[in-house]
Amino acid sequence: MVASTKFDFAEYLKERRELVQHKLAQFLAGDDPDTLWESMRYSVLSGGKRLRALLCLSTAEAIGGSQAIELALPCACAIECVHAFSLIHDDLPAMDDDDFRRGRPTNHKVYGEDMAILAGDALFALAFEILIKRTPAVPADVLLSVAGELARSSGGDGMVGGQVADLRLTGSTNAGAIPLANVETMHRRKTGALIKFSAWAGARLSGAGETQLAAVSQYGDILGLAFQIADDLLDETGDIKTLGKTPGKDAASGKATWVRAFGQEQAKERLQQLEAEGMQVLSALATGGEATRALECLLEFAIHRKH
Amino acid sequence: MVASTKFDFAEYLKERRELVQHKLAQFLAGDDPDTLWESMRYSVLSGGKRLRALLCLSTAEAIGGSQAIELALPCACAIECVHAFSLIHDDLPAMDDDDFRRGRPTNHKVYGEDMAILAGDALFALAFEILIKRTPAVPADVLLSVAGELARSSGGDGMVGGQVADLRLTGSTNAGAIPLANVETMHRRKTGALIKFSAWAGARLSGAGETQLAAVSQYGDILGLAFQIADDLLDETGDIKTLGKTPGKDAASGKATWVRAFGQEQAKERLQQLEAEGMQVLSALATGGEATRALECLLEFAIHRKH
Repeated sequence: MVASTKFDFAEYLKERRELVQHKLAQFLAGDDPDTLWESMRYSVLSGGKRLRALLCLSTAEAIGGSQAIELALPCACAIECVHAFSLIHDDLPAMDDDDFRRGRPTNHKVYGEDMAILAGDALFALAFEILIKRTPAVPADVLLSVAGELARSSGGDGMVGGQVADLRLTGSTNAGAIPLANVETMHRRKTGALIKFSAWAGARLSGAGETQLAAVSQYGDILGLAFQIADDLLDETGDIKTLGKTPGKDAASGKATWVRAFGQEQAKERLQQLEAEGMQVLSALATGGEATRALECLLEFAIHRKH
Repeated sequence: MVASTKFDFAEYLKERRELVQHKLAQFLAGDDPDTLWESMRYSVLSGGKRLRALLCLSTAEAIGGSQAIELALPCACAIECVHAFSLIHDDLPAMDDDDFRRGRPTNHKVYGEDMAILAGDALFALAFEILIKRTPAVPADVLLSVAGELARSSGGDGMVGGQVADLRLTGSTNAGAIPLANVETMHRRKTGALIKFSAWAGARLSGAGETQLAAVSQYGDILGLAFQIADDLLDETGDIKTLGKTPGKDAASGKATWVRAFGQEQAKERLQQLEAEGMQVLSALATGGEATRALECLLEFAIHRKH
């Protein structure tokens, strides 16, 4: 994506995705009750971009060097479990009623609604178990603050609250009736809160100071918004093969998307603006090295990706 | 329930239930998004026996004296949030499809299925937030171990796994086809795990040693099983007014109940046996005082209650 003689971003992504996938497979090796664990694995191990896990690992590395990856890896896996839990519940018939996710039938299509609800619940519990019980060598007060923040980012003030706002905004037939501020607030919670947490948590686990934490949080905030705007643009312009889900569905079902609220041109302008802001925040972080380069590339990836 | 010149159990229950109710109302005072919080409050503040919260407070007090109540109160509230979350999800049409709970329409009957799913999710997140961020003056490593154990007891190895086992055992038309061991294992998870956790957590938060923790866990285990057997007996013999839910429903829908598996007489014998075992464990705990008396009374209440 980014030309560099020194830094191979594709290789960086590949290595870390494999690390996350391998560790997730270990954490999700349970078999009792077998169908529950199978349905949990179905949604967690099916891939996806792993943006949140990568963010967590990269900020950890930017602050604490390559040995910090081990410290942040359980947290990165926990975040992917929370993310998968939210997707399973969002896809349910009573919610967005989606049949496809990542190019495969959604969890409830394969395992039934009851198992899908419970698989989501169990993944949410597992996230805290992984973070709290499997993170090595981090001071207890630091780990406690990360676990507390994961709870806050996931709940009514964060991700779940954003999904409620999304359901409420959905179905407004007149685009003009959706105030831009509401769309932005909704997205800051629904996808933004967990993305911001991912960036913050990696840095916190590897011992970042207040100034670094503030910068990393701001970067996460920017990246979360940019990711969502790009997502909405892709929903308008992508196809099912590259997206892995039905395109145009959000617009058709009356979702409060950025594109519906701003129009395509203004959404693209906002993306450019966010990219510039994000790069500036990163330059102020100034830890240098490969991990900071990776954080730049992750922002560019979130904005310029085709799926 | 128990004649004693010194100890007024009814008053003890009343005082602590009010304490829990008051604190829960504080923790659930959110209003954004308003419907989400309203639906969370609807299920959490509607009362119920508060058995889990009372257990947590009583073991804390038995170990650490009356000042330990403050330490355990956020945890007691967190447990009630987890319990309410599990009831909301269990009542959903895709699960047990119940219309009434505690004498009122179930959450999804009032707020819709989408909001009920999300209210459950938000309550689960809030439980960890309350426990981790609102518990005062407990060493970080102790609090961390309690939060990790809450996750384990609630998830696939505990409560959620038990609900999966319950769904799977339900509908076996031939009572003889349900192995007793499966019924016991299912209940040890579905209701037992969180009840056991409640007893353990109060003691852990107030600084109990290994021997005390083992005794309190064993007591919680016994009480959890006894509570469930009594519940199944009540389902056969109670009426809707005292139960607050439809009696006979579990039997009619082919649930794997203790009574179906053992028969009423054997279930009653098992209860007597558990009561004796529980009392013995408590006498070995030997901290004496009002709180130990309360733990005895809670066991008797779980076994001999009429609702």
